[in-house]
Amino acid sequence: MRLHPSSHRLRHFVQQLAALLERQPAEPEILTQGSALLADLVAHDDWLPNDYAQPQPQYYQQNLLHADALGRFSVVSFVWGPGQSTPIHDHTVWGLIGLLRGAEVSQGYAQDALGRWVPSGAPVVLRPGQVEAVSPTVGDVHRVSNALADQPSISIHVYGANIGAVERSVFLEDGSRKPFVSGYSNTALPNIWDLSTEKNAALQAAAVVV
Amino acid sequence: MRLHPSSHRLRHFVQQLAALLERQPAEPEILTQGSALLADLVAHDDWLPNDYAQPQPQYYQQNLLHADALGRFSVVSFVWGPGQSTPIHDHTVWGLIGLLRGAEVSQGYAQDALGRWVPSGAPVVLRPGQVEAVSPTVGDVHRVSNALADQPSISIHVYGANIGAVERSVFLEDGSRKPFVSGYSNTALPNIWDLSTEKNAALQAAAVVV
Ligand SMILES: [Fe+3]
Ligand SMILES: [Fe+3]
Ligand SMILES: [Mg+2]
Repeated sequence: MRLHPSSHRLRHFVQQLAALLERQPAEPEILTQGSALLADLVAHDDWLPNDYAQPQPQYYQQNLLHADALGRFSVVSFVWGPGQSTPIHDHTVWGLIGLLRGAEVSQGYAQDALGRWVPSGAPVVLRPGQVEAVSPTVGDVHRVSNALADQPSISIHVYGANIGAVERSVFLEDGSRKPFVSGYSNTALPNIWDLSTEKNAALQAAAVVV
Repeated sequence: MRLHPSSHRLRHFVQQLAALLERQPAEPEILTQGSALLADLVAHDDWLPNDYAQPQPQYYQQNLLHADALGRFSVVSFVWGPGQSTPIHDHTVWGLIGLLRGAEVSQGYAQDALGRWVPSGAPVVLRPGQVEAVSPTVGDVHRVSNALADQPSISIHVYGANIGAVERSVFLEDGSRKPFVSGYSNTALPNIWDLSTEKNAALQAAAVVV
């Protein structure tokens, strides 16, 4: 696998998000400033390596791109085949969803008087470059679908945890709850940390000048 | 690529090292406690995926296994073909070397009165399970070689930086210095962050009990 020459975009995003979280801001600031960083990342669709952009016929794909060692955050590419969707689910931690390619619909859900899960509010359609937030504070239960019936869509998700270790819930429409931990589809992450080519080129250029 | 069932060992090491550094200890404590963690990791040779354990005929391999987003540390598998060795080099940051497989020789170097680099002290032979430290404080210039002429050796290196972004030096025996940034051989890192299988099994077991 070759990395895209634009893999610095993902590295810069991960670095800036880590720096933001390092300041331990309250959730509203994480959502606001994190959304701005994610909007910058998904404003360009030239950096996601193809290995992390492949839909599969049966299930949508969740490819981990970076995980913080202490579970402070994770970054995941969701790849939707035509017409694929999630069940109704929660997150239990803050999450940001940035649309990279195609289009996606997020429908919020709430429980009615009988405890059944029913759509709540208008569906949100995300287009390339747009970002949405979820969390127990701002609304945590939704169902997400590829808005396109005939082509794949890709969104970049960021969570305030290693989402591959978070116990959360799928909700059936009858009101019952099924606890689950979502897995990752990929066994290898992109190596975005090799700066030797650009730094050695700079060293050589400096040596020529001296 | 499949991950070894023992990939939790690498995850636990990365988590414990991150937690140690999070406390911002002074370097002597990093070297002492980090060495103990690394010794635990390399006490078992059942966890490194084969993709990160392959020697190449021409060069020794430096495979990134994990990088902290803020450059607080990186973990790298060095894979030595028979007889391969590094040039004389420094690190400029603290480093720990744990021997996983085979055997490795580290020879320290110091400058003589004429500025030439000459061997300093006895060579250190590392056997599986053993750990050595380097840093500008405890001795930073060495040459490392596979101690085995007929088989590969593998060591796990930990640095107090993303070593793929650190400007450091190779030293020629005549005393001259060549600045360089070492690259990584791999374009994909092992995904050690999927806990869904074990956590979902625990959820199912709990559901059966209830
Ligand atoms: Fe979601
Ligand atoms: Fe070294
Ligand atoms: Mg990290």
